[in-house]
Amino acid sequence: MGTVPKGTAPKSLKFMKLSQIGEFGLIKEIQKGIRLSPRVIKGIGDDAAVIRSRVGKNLLVTTDMMAEGVHFTTAMDPLAIGHKALATNISDIAAMGGTPTCAVIAFGAPSGIELKQVTDVFQGIKNTARRFKIDVVGGDTIKTNRIVINITLLGEAFPQQLVYRSGAKPGDVIFVTGALGDSLKSGRHLKFVPRLKESQYLVKNWKPSSMIDISDGLVADLGHILEMSQVGAVLEEGLIPCQGQASLTQALYDGEDYELLFTLPRVQARRMLSKPQAGFSFYPIGEILTSKENFLLQKRNGRRQILNRKGFEHFK
Amino acid sequence: MGTVPKGTAPKSLKFMKLSQIGEFGLIKEIQKGIRLSPRVIKGIGDDAAVIRSRVGKNLLVTTDMMAEGVHFTTAMDPLAIGHKALATNISDIAAMGGTPTCAVIAFGAPSGIELKQVTDVFQGIKNTARRFKIDVVGGDTIKTNRIVINITLLGEAFPQQLVYRSGAKPGDVIFVTGALGDSLKSGRHLKFVPRLKESQYLVKNWKPSSMIDISDGLVADLGHILEMSQVGAVLEEGLIPCQGQASLTQALYDGEDYELLFTLPRVQARRMLSKPQAGFSFYPIGEILTSKENFLLQKRNGRRQILNRKGFEHFK
Repeated sequence: MGTVPKGTAPKSLKFMKLSQIGEFGLIKEIQKGIRLSPRVIKGIGDDAAVIRSRVGKNLLVTTDMMAEGVHFTTAMDPLAIGHKALATNISDIAAMGGTPTCAVIAFGAPSGIELKQVTDVFQGIKNTARRFKIDVVGGDTIKTNRIVINITLLGEAFPQQLVYRSGAKPGDVIFVTGALGDSLKSGRHLKFVPRLKESQYLVKNWKPSSMIDISDGLVADLGHILEMSQVGAVLEEGLIPCQGQASLTQALYDGEDYELLFTLPRVQARRMLSKPQAGFSFYPIGEILTSKENFLLQKRNGRRQILNRKGFEHFK
Repeated sequence: MGTVPKGTAPKSLKFMKLSQIGEFGLIKEIQKGIRLSPRVIKGIGDDAAVIRSRVGKNLLVTTDMMAEGVHFTTAMDPLAIGHKALATNISDIAAMGGTPTCAVIAFGAPSGIELKQVTDVFQGIKNTARRFKIDVVGGDTIKTNRIVINITLLGEAFPQQLVYRSGAKPGDVIFVTGALGDSLKSGRHLKFVPRLKESQYLVKNWKPSSMIDISDGLVADLGHILEMSQVGAVLEEGLIPCQGQASLTQALYDGEDYELLFTLPRVQARRMLSKPQAGFSFYPIGEILTSKENFLLQKRNGRRQILNRKGFEHFK
């Protein structure tokens, strides 16, 4: 740096291509601004990260891959792409009733891409990591022909806080944490706030019998709960909260809302609905039924319609 | 299955494309044959996996991404590709002195690919997982335009077993666990056995002062130890074990050998070399020097040559 005028190097660095800065130069850029909490014994820079185990807590692990041309395009805000890559994982940990702790990031990109585009994606990840107190402890960077981001997120939970998809019981009331539909076209899928606070509040103050985050769509993800819990359900058309201009069909079938969907025994549900819940909105939208064959929509006109469990599915 | 003649369905399934079987069909195929150890409370099938923490042990995390056209081609044996995707991660955990425990697999592939090609990659992963007692606890499957595999592997180690890159001291002897060079052309990079047994033996019976696995090349990876330990090194030309037809240059600079490179204080090194080591081969190849500026090759002709720290680097 001795012979380079001040300020010139960092500026020009931004417009350098990955092929010029190389893998190790990129890793140095990525590491900037990463501060680690005491639970991390060794972060980026060795063969593996080392993390202190927490006595009495279970370890949670989830992983999400996002690819250019499928989940995002290079025309989108790279900060938002980074945010989403981590936020979808946080949503998964929240859906288990856990707290996120540490993330590793694997990133593939073409050599010809500008450094700034990559560091902005990482900045988006790091911003969201800081907000949710997540340590970025490692990763891998490789050359690919289109951008691929894979984040694996670790979390923790006391055993009694864990909520599975498999615990819904007939009579339980079905809730969602927010309005649904039109997430992709409205751009909400890039900006959503994972419902971690809601999840923490729920597992602390109530005991949901089952929970999942809505990524494939309300019907598809409720379908997962029904399958795992071996039960049926009826949704009330008039109770399903729709986002802005979203139609009922969109609220039922659109993906990427990342609201939490959970069930609560009827007595508890009544108590929950009888008083304010610390500023959170929990919308009752239906009820769990006995037979696993029953998956119905109670229409406003009094008729019941069988729901078709389609939802977003890769490769189809 | 009732109306399908026996044997027909599974056979035809193999030749189905991902676009026909869909994401959830693929996940069902992948899950086949996965058996989990008692440490796994919840494996594939919920929002995140749940794993019992081990009191007194630290948690290790490592991640490796592999892309079609960069790390492998579809002409290669898919079982070997799957093996390699997991084995590179096992090698990283071994390089820390740890034991692998659980893996999550993120997998991207084009819709038009045949199911069998995908399930064979997963079979390769599962075979190696079984061999090394690793639980496959979760993953993600998405559509991409070329195959991408990302495995995140968790491991554990008692704090006193951990070996970092940063502990090499002047006077320490440098060792490798096997012959080097020509791994890519010879195909060894697809079939290598990660040096987990060697690592376990070393951390139990000796206390390496530093350790790394050779993925970028001997000089490049020893360079990482020198940088992290703030020391120099001299390698002895006559002592470096070369694979089959590999030249010294190949042994020094070729990547993907996945042998362990470690350092041992001189007194211990002498003791190690004085008696058989339970059938393992540990080759002394040089010595750690004081100055971090010194990275030398002691030639057979008595001259010393400065080593150039190049090695494989993505994007360059």
